[in-house]
Order: sequence, then structure tokens, then C-alpha cells
Amino acid sequence: MYGFDSDYLEGAHPEILSALAQSNLIQSAGYGEDEYCREARRKISAAAGCSESAAHFVVGGTQANLCAVALFLRPWEGVISADTGHIAVHETGAIEATGHKVLPLKNAYGKISASQIDEYCALHAASPTREHTVKPGMVYISQPTEYGTLYTLDELEKISIVCKRHALKLYADGARLVYALSCPENDVKLNDLSRLCDAYTIGGTKAGLLFGEALIINEESACVNFRYLMKQRGAMLAKGRLLGVQFSALFTDGLYERIGAHAIRLAARIRTALADGGIPLYVPSPTNQLFPVFESAQLETLLKHFSLSPWEELADGRKVMRICTSWATREDETEKLIALLKKV
Amino acid sequence: MYGFDSDYLEGAHPEILSALAQSNLIQSAGYGEDEYCREARRKISAAAGCSESAAHFVVGGTQANLCAVALFLRPWEGVISADTGHIAVHETGAIEATGHKVLPLKNAYGKISASQIDEYCALHAASPTREHTVKPGMVYISQPTEYGTLYTLDELEKISIVCKRHALKLYADGARLVYALSCPENDVKLNDLSRLCDAYTIGGTKAGLLFGEALIINEESACVNFRYLMKQRGAMLAKGRLLGVQFSALFTDGLYERIGAHAIRLAARIRTALADGGIPLYVPSPTNQLFPVFESAQLETLLKHFSLSPWEELADGRKVMRICTSWATREDETEKLIALLKKV
Amino acid sequence: MYGFDSDYLEGAHPEILSALAQSNLIQSAGYGEDEYCREARRKISAAAGCSESAAHFVVGGTQANLCAVALFLRPWEGVISADTGHIAVHETGAIEATGHKVLPLKNAYGKISASQIDEYCALHAASPTREHTVKPGMVYISQPTEYGTLYTLDELEKISIVCKRHALKLYADGARLVYALSCPENDVKLNDLSRLCDAYTIGGTKAGLLFGEALIINEESACVNFRYLMKQRGAMLAKGRLLGVQFSALFTDGLYERIGAHAIRLAARIRTALADGGIPLYVPSPTNQLFPVFESAQLETLLKHFSLSPWEELADGRKVMRICTSWATREDETEKLIALLKKV
Amino acid sequence: MYGFDSDYLEGAHPEILSALAQSNLIQSAGYGEDEYCREARRKISAAAGCSESAAHFVVGGTQANLCAVALFLRPWEGVISADTGHIAVHETGAIEATGHKVLPLKNAYGKISASQIDEYCALHAASPTREHTVKPGMVYISQPTEYGTLYTLDELEKISIVCKRHALKLYADGARLVYALSCPENDVKLNDLSRLCDAYTIGGTKAGLLFGEALIINEESACVNFRYLMKQRGAMLAKGRLLGVQFSALFTDGLYERIGAHAIRLAARIRTALADGGIPLYVPSPTNQLFPVFESAQLETLLKHFSLSPWEELADGRKVMRICTSWATREDETEKLIALLKKV
Repeated sequence: MYGFDSDYLEGAHPEILSALAQSNLIQSAGYGEDEYCREARRKISAAAGCSESAAHFVVGGTQANLCAVALFLRPWEGVISADTGHIAVHETGAIEATGHKVLPLKNAYGKISASQIDEYCALHAASPTREHTVKPGMVYISQPTEYGTLYTLDELEKISIVCKRHALKLYADGARLVYALSCPENDVKLNDLSRLCDAYTIGGTKAGLLFGEALIINEESACVNFRYLMKQRGAMLAKGRLLGVQFSALFTDGLYERIGAHAIRLAARIRTALADGGIPLYVPSPTNQLFPVFESAQLETLLKHFSLSPWEELADGRKVMRICTSWATREDETEKLIALLKKV
Repeated sequence: MYGFDSDYLEGAHPEILSALAQSNLIQSAGYGEDEYCREARRKISAAAGCSESAAHFVVGGTQANLCAVALFLRPWEGVISADTGHIAVHETGAIEATGHKVLPLKNAYGKISASQIDEYCALHAASPTREHTVKPGMVYISQPTEYGTLYTLDELEKISIVCKRHALKLYADGARLVYALSCPENDVKLNDLSRLCDAYTIGGTKAGLLFGEALIINEESACVNFRYLMKQRGAMLAKGRLLGVQFSALFTDGLYERIGAHAIRLAARIRTALADGGIPLYVPSPTNQLFPVFESAQLETLLKHFSLSPWEELADGRKVMRICTSWATREDETEKLIALLKKV
Repeated sequence: MYGFDSDYLEGAHPEILSALAQSNLIQSAGYGEDEYCREARRKISAAAGCSESAAHFVVGGTQANLCAVALFLRPWEGVISADTGHIAVHETGAIEATGHKVLPLKNAYGKISASQIDEYCALHAASPTREHTVKPGMVYISQPTEYGTLYTLDELEKISIVCKRHALKLYADGARLVYALSCPENDVKLNDLSRLCDAYTIGGTKAGLLFGEALIINEESACVNFRYLMKQRGAMLAKGRLLGVQFSALFTDGLYERIGAHAIRLAARIRTALADGGIPLYVPSPTNQLFPVFESAQLETLLKHFSLSPWEELADGRKVMRICTSWATREDETEKLIALLKKV
Repeated sequence: MYGFDSDYLEGAHPEILSALAQSNLIQSAGYGEDEYCREARRKISAAAGCSESAAHFVVGGTQANLCAVALFLRPWEGVISADTGHIAVHETGAIEATGHKVLPLKNAYGKISASQIDEYCALHAASPTREHTVKPGMVYISQPTEYGTLYTLDELEKISIVCKRHALKLYADGARLVYALSCPENDVKLNDLSRLCDAYTIGGTKAGLLFGEALIINEESACVNFRYLMKQRGAMLAKGRLLGVQFSALFTDGLYERIGAHAIRLAARIRTALADGGIPLYVPSPTNQLFPVFESAQLETLLKHFSLSPWEELADGRKVMRICTSWATREDETEKLIALLKKV
């Protein structure tokens, strides 16, 4: 049975795997201090307009998130996040395990707004008992969000301004950033993230790598000792070159763009099929994650042929499912899914 | 200007201070291993039906709360609390600084219910991605709550049953417990807390002591190494005897009951005056904290003569204030306040 | 049986207790934002040459130490200490519980030297694998040390220079500082500590207070949010005024100096008696702690009349004991002890 | 220039890489709940005599170590280690970042003994101030040690007995275990580790995998919630199947044994060459790490042709270097090194 349930069901894009195979027996230094990592940093710097020293490579997204929080926050500070944010819900308290509180704001389709952040910080600052509450020190957003939605450039600019006003660090989790960048609706470029965020990630795990996230830290002084922190939290890979090799290949010959474009194109076709079939969407997500709402009978038929990801059950008994495409999604299986969606 | 804004505006009840003075130059062992602490444990054991070894004395409530959480929870577990709970809001992330997440449930006048806890835990247990979320391991309630309301014995029994069902530790913060116990509406006795909770505190700071909370841990095995934890978190007082002397005096000659009765009696008179004056209450609290809703003009007059604690501003511009009584509240000032309330 | 085993066997100096009694029923704000604390800060500022905002009051020494470490260190940094330092040995891992490693250096009678610190940091900085080891970020010393010895002003100046060279914060634990300052051998004044240390404590618990340590933070920017941290770690006393009242009284009418002088005078007499009796000292400590080495027979006789503190057993079976004097040590009992020392 | 400086200079053993390539486009569940991981667990269970559910796969050694410590220790407990242990020195305070102290014992060629552990724990238990010091709760050893030396079965049995006596968990870091097992001098089998340790790792990173350590937890109750902890610390790989595929291949067709045998055979030849050349060894290590002591002139010549790892400088100016072999070490380069060693 073919799976559309997530975007990390397979291993690596063949070009990534090939790069690993080609470099496999070449000796290199450990812990990310090798030529492959340097090359990857140069390519990311060129693509994202960040400095070469800004890019750090870690294995997974939770590592990136918890290291960023531990880097930026002082002990009494917390990180503002949508109440649906990955760090708020799906990392088993990884942030709290670093000693910091996640300060949740009510999300709108996975997003929070500049004015929400502004109001929260203004209330905190004005409170006579503020010292008895956690001080906001950072804002966490994800692009795209856990619901596949996108911040517009205007929204991001406004959030950045509010963050500066309240001395908050701005961090964007880009686990699925590749699928935002390839999206016609998107107007936030890598350069904008480098310009507006104190740090953000360029996700590799869901973008064709075996594993790996590039954590871009746009503040030189914050980077100085960051590798100590990576080592301490188990986020420094012994054979760090594996991350360099993969990210270098990802930013070669337009692979990054091709990966995004493939997934977005197939997602768009499924979205059209859903609309044609009169199947409503729970969230208006323009990226590689779709959240259709199914009747029980429809779902029963679908799940005989495809695995989808259960998301939520509505009050009326209908079920929200997640359909994902990725670099690996097959055209033929997508055609079969579309055909079936038209039938149900 | 006389203050009704909190219940810890003065030092200690004269009988407490006298006990400190009488024992002042007598030599004793440090760190709570003295005869005064043993005596206090015996008296608390007699009053609360707990074992003598169950009682531990710490200086403050945040210390008690964070030590209890660090004692009971494993690293991946969190503590369920009302979203208005003291640990959720007013301890600057003390719980998160121990590495644990506070799992907030929507409060009803400061309280949460057995069914809310049950549903939360059932949802967690049933989730296929539960390992990606914090496991509930403990329930925090306060008696009375931050809004001065009380859990009934029936409610507490039900919470205790749910906690056992889901293997949750039950912890009650009794910072103002003295004012619950003296309340006619209250049907939860000290013995019930010893029977139903894994741990709870008998607050001293707001009950006539200079400082001090008795943390009752009703599980012998959990107590074995607890003093290591107290020392580690800075909660073990060098001259521990000060806590023993004070708690011993508190449970002598009915002082504990007298202290509660005084505050409750004066609060009741103020409550009547508010009702007579047509001033509504924001929360139906039967204990020593009252939350009247004032018009601006009323408040302006009042604040010329008394200090009250600002709590919240309503959408219509009216202001919720907190009025507190305590062991120290003066009869004459209470009369003056009542007279003024009638006028405004 | 009279005790010379520690310097916190009694409650408070009568003048301190009297100040508490006199202020007892006066209402004040909580959490250290009251007039008593302000007055105490003014007096400490005058005595120590620090700014008024530099002084923070906490209940105990472990709280002061762990808060200072949490304030000054970044997650990957550790604190250098003598291997006999209080934080290295006697606080149940309080520092590690904040996430930081104690980096022990071999002590000489409780002290470490500027050159030891310099060498340690130079080795770290030169190591190609330094990112795999904890970065030194702070130096902890105590004045007097756990062995009652003193840093000279020259030693302290040198340590301060080395700390600046390696960007280390310098912190001095002054739990028994009162007994250093009254010591004829001492040439380090309060002003020197304010000038040379980033932070230090003026201990109250062992200096006649019921409890309390003044933590002096000589860096304004570090102070800005320190009260958040105090609250988070349970180090902010609800009735903070108790600390203000006590420290204010301590720095009134020369009480601080009188307390130190009394203890040092009696310690000197015991030291002379030990010398006269041919009883060797384990450590040449000029302050209120003496570490005589006793034969078993001597000790047996002594312990029939006085309690002393066991410290160490030598290879030859002789025992090192600690004899302490304090503000509370009685002249008559000291005479009895001296007489007995001469006999044994 | 060919490197003998470490055993992780290359990528993966070709059979491992081939297994990754073959499974690359097959879809599977994430987070280690896939068929590849189940298969790897079955094979490890067969090879090591542990239960199938005992094996957990993480990316790196620091992750394995910090997760084991966080799993086994209560907040007031610390972990005993040789002062040269990896967790004591080379993980940037990863253990302290979990809140726990490393309790160092003086090593003998990287090892600690049962009697050292026994004495340490007995002293702790007998101390009247034990509650003021960290309680030993776990013992960390590595097999082979950081110096390439081995615990004998007899030594390990004795350590296990002492651990049970003092209620200590026993944990063995097997980052280079493959090179211990293939060593003629070794008499500790995988089954012995399963029988004697509460947990241990079977290192993959240095044994032919791209990355990955199998953490064997021999206590079913400790395993129950361990995956929550893995997720929280960023140690749960999204595409967990990569670890399953690799470990499954490692335990197929005797690859694990072949990898160990190759490295040990080449190390033995270098060891002989060193002896023949009169070059002394700093440590008598029988595994894949050799620590020869070179004169400056010798070293200068060697470093023109090979990279070695600097270890220590002796007082007389001679230098200890580390020479490592691994699954990847080339025969021809080994011959060249041997020839050169004979010349210098």
C-alpha cells in the first residue's frame, strides 16, 4: 500500500545518496570541520545571503530547536509560539527540558501575528508582578507551519519589527521550508529569512536528505561558542561530513528547487482533485500538506488503497486527514489517488 | 494607609515571634535535624493524620512546589494544572527550570475537575504520537485556589480516583490552607488531604509565620532521599530549627484555628458589606480573598484610604480588585473599610 | 553540653531579633520591594562601596551560589573552584542541577591561585578539542575558605587580573565574611571585594541573622533581570522585608564589626590554648574556625564536655576536629574549654 | 596524506552503504517503528542475549550517554566515572546539562575498580553530612576505555556485584566495543554485558556505520517510557529506519566480527613494529588504539607522511600520539606506516 501520510517515508534523493557513496571512503576530519561542510556553507551562503560561518549542521529538527532556544534565552526567559507550534506540542517537552517555558499564543491556521506578540509583551512589561512570570525572550514560528500555511513577507516583516521593539530573538523553523519556497503563493525568500530572523533552519530531512537540518544563525557573536552547545546536547555528528556532503549536493544543480517543485506540483493536482470531488479542506494550505475532511465512507475506501495520516475528528464525525507529497512522491501513485478521490 | 491588598503584609503572629525569642539562644543542630523540628512533626502528624516522617519544612511556596515536582516526575513527565495555577503563571517558570512542562487545563473559578483530567490523560494515552508529547505524571491543585475558591471533598475524592487510574501523583498547594480549613463552606479536612494526596503543603507564610511551608509527603519511599533534593535546590534552611519552632507554635493552643477563624470572620463581614452596597463579586470565593468589581469612581474613593490589589480590568472598564484578610487584619480598620464600602 | 561545632547553633543576635520584633506589625510590600530593604541597601552601599541597586537578599548560601552561577554562565560554561569549595562538595550538586559543571582545581589549604586559573584556561583555549570540554566561565572562591584561611589582597588582585584576561566572572562566597573582616591578618576590605569581584556575598546566617545572605552584583546590566531568576529558583522571600530589617540592623551601630570581633577574639584565645597545650593545627586558619588535631584520648575527654565537629581522620589515627566561634559564643564556656584543653 | 588519527575518518563500510541504497526508496514508518528496526533488534537480541525490546537506536554516543543518565538517575544522584571517562571530560558537560554531577575516580590506564567504587559509596553512606553531597546512583565505564584498555570479565563481575550492593546502575559505553570483542586478550562477551550491566551501547559510528549507537537497556521497566526521553533529547531520528537498516546489516554475515578482526589485526602489526623499533607505549592497550611515545625527531618524520592524533606531552618533551585502526584501515598504508616506524 502506497503512503501519502508523511514526507519522510523514504530514504534520500538519489543524487544525495550518490554524493554520499562517492565520498564514502575519502578520509576527513570529524565534527563538521571538513571540506564538505565548508563547501556546503559556501553554497548555503550564496543561496541564502547569510555569512558562511552562520550555517551549522545538526541531525534533526528537535536538536536544532532546542539548541537555538538554549543559545538565545537567559534562564528566566521563555519562547513565544503558536499553541500548535512543533515545540509547543510535538517535542515531548524538549524546550522545557532546557529549562525554558513555551509561551503559547492562539494560532490562526498555525500562525501567530505581530500584533499578538506585541500585545503579549506589552502586557508583560506593564504588569507590576512581571518578575513573577516568565519573560518573553524569543519568538518561534515555522515556515510553512504545522498546518502547511505560509507567513507572507509582510507578516514576517511586521513580526520582525515587533521582535526588535521588545528585544525578542526571532527564530523560524524551516523543517519543510523547501516546500514553502517552491510554492507560487509564497513571497518569502531565503534572503528574507536571513535578513529578518536571528536564526532559522533549512530542513533537509524532509527535503531529500537522509537526515540533517542547517541551522542558520545570523548573529556572529551568538555563533562564537555555539559548537560547544551543539556538542553538549548531542547535536554534533561525529562524521559531520555526512551533513556537509548532503547539503552540498542539495544546493547543487538546482536540486533544492527541483525537489520543492515536484512536491508542490503533485500537491496542487491532488488539491484540484479534492475540489473537483467536493471534498472540503480543513485548512487553506498552499504547500505540500493537505488537510481534507472526509466522510467515513469515503475514508474507508481510500484507506484500502493508500495510507494517510489521521489528524483530527470533527464534532460531526467527519475526519480530517493529512495528505503529504514530497520529493519522493510517485506520479503513478498520485494519478491513482486522484482517480480514487474522484470516485469517492 | 492601611492595606487589605495581601495576606502577608506583616511579620509573624505574636505567639510565633515569642516562640522564636524564647528559643533564640538555645543551641541546636542545623538543617532541620533538631528537637524543635521533631516536635513540630509530631504535632502536624497528630493534626493531619500523616506520619511524623512525612513533614518537611521549607522556607517558601515556590521551593515546596518545585521540589515536589522534581521529586515526583520523571524527565519526560509534566504536571497538570489549572491555567490559573500558581505554578502555571506566577513562579517565573520555576517548574520549567526543573525541566518539566506545566500542562494547563482551563479553570473554572480557579479549579479543574476530575473529568477534565481524565479526558486529558485518556487522549494522551490513545494518541499514536503520544511519545512526541509530554506524558502527564502529576496533578497540581491549590486549596483554596488562587481565586479563593474551594474544592469540595467530593471533588477531591473524584480527582484522587482519576489520578490513581492514570498513575498520576496528586499534589495540593496549601499556601492559604489555614483559610480554607476555617471556612464554614469547607468540608475538606487535613486528614482528607493526607489520605487523598501524594503530597500537599500546609502554608505558614500566610498563616502567621515569618516564613515557612510544611511539605507533607505521604509516601515513605518518596521521602527517603528527599532531603538531598531540598539541599540541592537551596530549600534546606541552615538554622532549620526556625521552621520547627514556628510550626510547633502554630500547632499549639489552637493557634492555627484561631488564625483562620479571625481572617474568615472579618472577610465574611466585608463580603456582607459588599453585598449590601450592591458591589458584585467577580468570583464566589468563600475564603479570605474577595474579588469585588468596582466602578472607577468607587475605586478612586477607596484607594484614598486603603490599599487594595489590582486583579483584572473588565471589558466595560470596571476593575476587579483583591481584598485580603489575614491573622493580622485589624478589627478597627475592617470597620472603617466597611463603612466606606457602604458609602461608595 | 555546650557546642563549639559550628557557627550557626543559635538563632539571631539580640539586636537583630529586636529589630524584627519592633517592625513586626508594620505593613510593607512583599518580595523585597519595601523600605527596610531599601534602607539595608543604602547601608551596605555605604559600607561596601557598591551601588545601592547591587545588593540582593536571599535566604541561604546555596541559593546565592546557584543563582549567581545561573546568572553569569552560558549553558556550555563551567565554574572553576577549589576541589574543597562549598559548591564542589557540599551543596548536593546544586550547581550541576542548574546545568553547569564545577571545574575543580587542587586546593592549598582551601585556596586556589591566579596561576592555577591562568594555566587551566590557557590549556583549555589551546586545546584543539576544546569544544568537547566545558568552557571555564567563572571562578568561585570563598573568603574565608572552608578551611578558615584567607586570600590576601595581593592574591585577590592577581586572581581578578587573570579573570579579566580570560573573560571569567569572579565570585566570592562570603558566608563567613564577617569573620574575615575582623581578623588582624586580613587585608581584604569590603571595598576591595566590590572593586575586584563581579559578585560576592555578605553572609548573614553565620553573622547574627536568623538567616539571609546579601548577594552583591557589581555589574548593573547583570542585575537588570536578576529578580526574575531569584523568583524562579525559590530564592525570593515573600516577606522580603525580613531580610531588609535584619541586614539594616546588622549594619547599624557597628554591630557587624562587633560580631566579628567577638568571635575572632575568642578564637584567638582558643588558638593560644591549643598552642600552649601542644595540640597541632591541621590548617593555619586565622579566622573563627580552628582545626586542631587530637589524639583519641584527648578527644574522648573533650567530647564529654563539649560538642565539636569531626572533620577528617589522619592516617595515624589522630582526628581533625573543627572548633568554631561566633557572635554567640559564650565567654564562660570558652574559658571552660580553654581550661580543659590545657588539661588534656 | 593518510590518516591513522581516528577510527571515524571515512563514511560507512560498503556492505552498510549498500544496505542503505537497496532500501532507499521503500516507504516505512518513522521514528524507529519500522520493520528494519525490528529486524535489527531481533539480530542484536540473538547476538547479545538481550530481549528484543531492550535495543534502542540513537545517532550518537553523547546522546546515548546523556539519555542513559537521564533515564537512570534521580535528581540528587550522580554518576561515578573514571576521571578520564568520556562523560567526565569530552562531552562539554552533557551530563551536567541533564542536571547530574559526574563523580570522578582516579583511573588506572582508563579503568576504575570495584574496590574504588565500593570505598567511595561506603564513605558516602557513612558520612553524617551525606545529604549535602551528591549521592552515587550509577557507574559509567567504557569497554574498551578511552585508553584502549579492557576490563576483564572478572573485573566486570566484581564491579557488577559492588553496584548491586550499593544500588548503583551499571552502564558500559561501548563506542568501540567491536574492537574489544575481536581482541584476543578480551574475555568479556556481548552476553556478559547483557547479564552484568543495566545498560550498555554497541557502537556503530566507529564500527562501519555512517552513524548510530545501539543502546541496550536490560531492565524492562526502565524501557517502558524511554522513547519519550529519546524524543525529548533530540535522539529519536525521524527516519529511524536508517539505524535499523545499518544495524541489521552490521549483524549479517558476520560483518561485525569481520570489521573488528580487520582493525585488530592491523593494530597488532603496528604494535609489533613499534616494539621492534623500540618505541615505548604509554598505555598497554590491546585494542585498535595505540599510544606510542615519540621523540620529536621521530614524530617530525612520521607526520610528513601520516596524520596521527596528539594525545599528551610528557615532562621530558616526548609526545604521546594516538594511532587508530578501523574497519577502513588500508593494508597498503599500514605497510607503509610500519616501514616508516622501522626507519625512525
